[in-house]
Amino acid sequence: MKLNIALLAGDGIGPEVIDQAVKVSNAVAKKFGHEINWTPALTGAAAIDAVGEPYPDETHEVCANADAVLFGAIGHPRFDNDPSAKVRPEQGLLKMRQKLGLFANVRPTFTFPSLIDKSPLKRERIEGTDLIILRELTGGVYFGERGRKDNGNTAFDTMTYQRFEIERLARKGFEMALKRSKKLCCVDKANVLESSRLWRETVQNMEKEYPEVEVSYEFVDAVAMRLVQWPKAYDVIITANLFGDILTDEASVISGSMGLMPSSSVGSKVSLYEPIHGSYPQAAGKNIANPLATVLSAAMLFEDLDLIDEAEVIRAVVNKSLAEGIVTEDLAEGGKSYGTSDVGDWLASNI
Amino acid sequence: MKLNIALLAGDGIGPEVIDQAVKVSNAVAKKFGHEINWTPALTGAAAIDAVGEPYPDETHEVCANADAVLFGAIGHPRFDNDPSAKVRPEQGLLKMRQKLGLFANVRPTFTFPSLIDKSPLKRERIEGTDLIILRELTGGVYFGERGRKDNGNTAFDTMTYQRFEIERLARKGFEMALKRSKKLCCVDKANVLESSRLWRETVQNMEKEYPEVEVSYEFVDAVAMRLVQWPKAYDVIITANLFGDILTDEASVISGSMGLMPSSSVGSKVSLYEPIHGSYPQAAGKNIANPLATVLSAAMLFEDLDLIDEAEVIRAVVNKSLAEGIVTEDLAEGGKSYGTSDVGDWLASNI
Ligand SMILES: CC(C)[C@H](C(=O)O)[C@@H](O)C(=O)O
Ligand SMILES: CC(C)[C@H](C(=O)O)[C@@H](O)C(=O)O
Repeated sequence: MKLNIALLAGDGIGPEVIDQAVKVSNAVAKKFGHEINWTPALTGAAAIDAVGEPYPDETHEVCANADAVLFGAIGHPRFDNDPSAKVRPEQGLLKMRQKLGLFANVRPTFTFPSLIDKSPLKRERIEGTDLIILRELTGGVYFGERGRKDNGNTAFDTMTYQRFEIERLARKGFEMALKRSKKLCCVDKANVLESSRLWRETVQNMEKEYPEVEVSYEFVDAVAMRLVQWPKAYDVIITANLFGDILTDEASVISGSMGLMPSSSVGSKVSLYEPIHGSYPQAAGKNIANPLATVLSAAMLFEDLDLIDEAEVIRAVVNKSLAEGIVTEDLAEGGKSYGTSDVGDWLASNI
Repeated sequence: MKLNIALLAGDGIGPEVIDQAVKVSNAVAKKFGHEINWTPALTGAAAIDAVGEPYPDETHEVCANADAVLFGAIGHPRFDNDPSAKVRPEQGLLKMRQKLGLFANVRPTFTFPSLIDKSPLKRERIEGTDLIILRELTGGVYFGERGRKDNGNTAFDTMTYQRFEIERLARKGFEMALKRSKKLCCVDKANVLESSRLWRETVQNMEKEYPEVEVSYEFVDAVAMRLVQWPKAYDVIITANLFGDILTDEASVISGSMGLMPSSSVGSKVSLYEPIHGSYPQAAGKNIANPLATVLSAAMLFEDLDLIDEAEVIRAVVNKSLAEGIVTEDLAEGGKSYGTSDVGDWLASNI
């Protein structure tokens, strides 16, 4: 198979971790007789510096024409706490999601047996956790009308949803649930928000199409609580953009291994794969960043292209590296640690 | 001192736990030579049944004319999952907040040394946690315009903030921080929302009035993560209504003793005190509900009326009951447990 993959390294540790995922993917491709054509493109602060735009048109062209996008991270401290900055890396992210139509952010939360004691949560609470949060990614209050009134003294943002946006996301949720434990939880704030009532109504109407799936409806505040109390209660969660932003980050703490958590952002034409850890600027350029989340994101990429064995090979080699202690310093527990690129080399040569 | 307190028992376990707080408050009043005049009034499902309205005008009169309001809980399962119900208990809650102008919900999170191992979080992560979340309670997306368009296929909610609403809440936050560890964290989503940018701008403008307070700004998704990872990082958090709804519930898990967490909702004229645990209908009428959160809410009530010693006496007797195992079954760990009213009697007689 010939694969065309857009490569968006981005900012901070992005380029370093992306390099390792490329090595590993190339090794997998070689093993299975595929050919990967990587096309790098600029994004984030790096793109602002180069062309004044965090998601340039040329980058969009590259992504739109690829079979998939592998993404590092964007964000740079020089834009933080500067509410006046006109162009910000995050705008690139939002524009990319919208222009590529990446409507569903898929965030698995699972534990690694060997790392479970790194979690702030007690072992018995989290052992066996295996849930997926499906966050709507191109609608809601992220993309509604916003602005100021009264000489700047009143600000507003509009949270809007259309039925088809909810249906599209929910359908993906139902289908995922069918392949897993057949439990779907719709998370909203329907006791207050009209948009949440449209969510609930839409999902309720779809229930009859999926009689095997057991559907529950919970309020976002209750879920913020239960996710920490008993994450094993959940299988597939579907939720709106803003709620998903909060809950996916909260859930990322469960495993105790945020540096290992992959994600995908699914569109109808092309999908994007990225680690959830962000650009982590303090570590940039030091060859200390943990590349495993990006490597596992590449596994999700292969899986979504129906290259299931390829994905499994990547997951297996990651587990092997953990078992053998070939890890970056964040996982070394004071023991021997390896550089970002050493871990990547080891993984690639053990494929 | 003569105190006029409105008594809103509400639904579910509300009446039972309120009874105990009344006993304890009366015992404290007697000890310190105060006189409390309790005026009961209807609210929630109970009020819907009686007069078709979850927050009747008569109840509002009682509250508006009281020195403080002691509140149990509202909510009844027969209204859940019935998006079509015209009158719902929650509407009473929102109407009450708005009509009484309860603009700041104060939610302390702390641990009880004797109960710390009940937390889903590891002891070393939470020991010494002592933070307060100040949630804006009468603005934001809870009270903005909402509705449907396109034959019901599009729904919208408006998140609005005016500068004075943010200032009022932030001022309370700065003042609380001054009396505590002098750290204030403004939690928003200023990288996306215009209303959050107004929050940040407003709080930044106030910083110079409080040079002793160290102010930080964090995104709500990051805080959802850090609250679980390292709650000791926080002292006073100020945030918008919806973010506060989610974060206060998340934070309530930290102590492992949600049944013990009190809260206040502060207005400019009158304030309201309530346990955070809700109406817990499954336990209603069984004399098993834990009354301590309501009793500790009464302590907050005394403290806000500058009756500091009175508040301390209540807190001391609660700690004594925990130390001596005079507890309801949720805290009994398989040992001897007491009924709701027994715990109340014990507390009152040990004042
Ligand atoms: C950077 C920010 C705009 C973004 C979001 O809120 O979507 C980030 O938090 C994320 O979750 O990818
Ligand atoms: C019942 C509901 C409307 C309410 C809210 O969201 O404010 C509740 O969750 C709370 O936090 O008091």
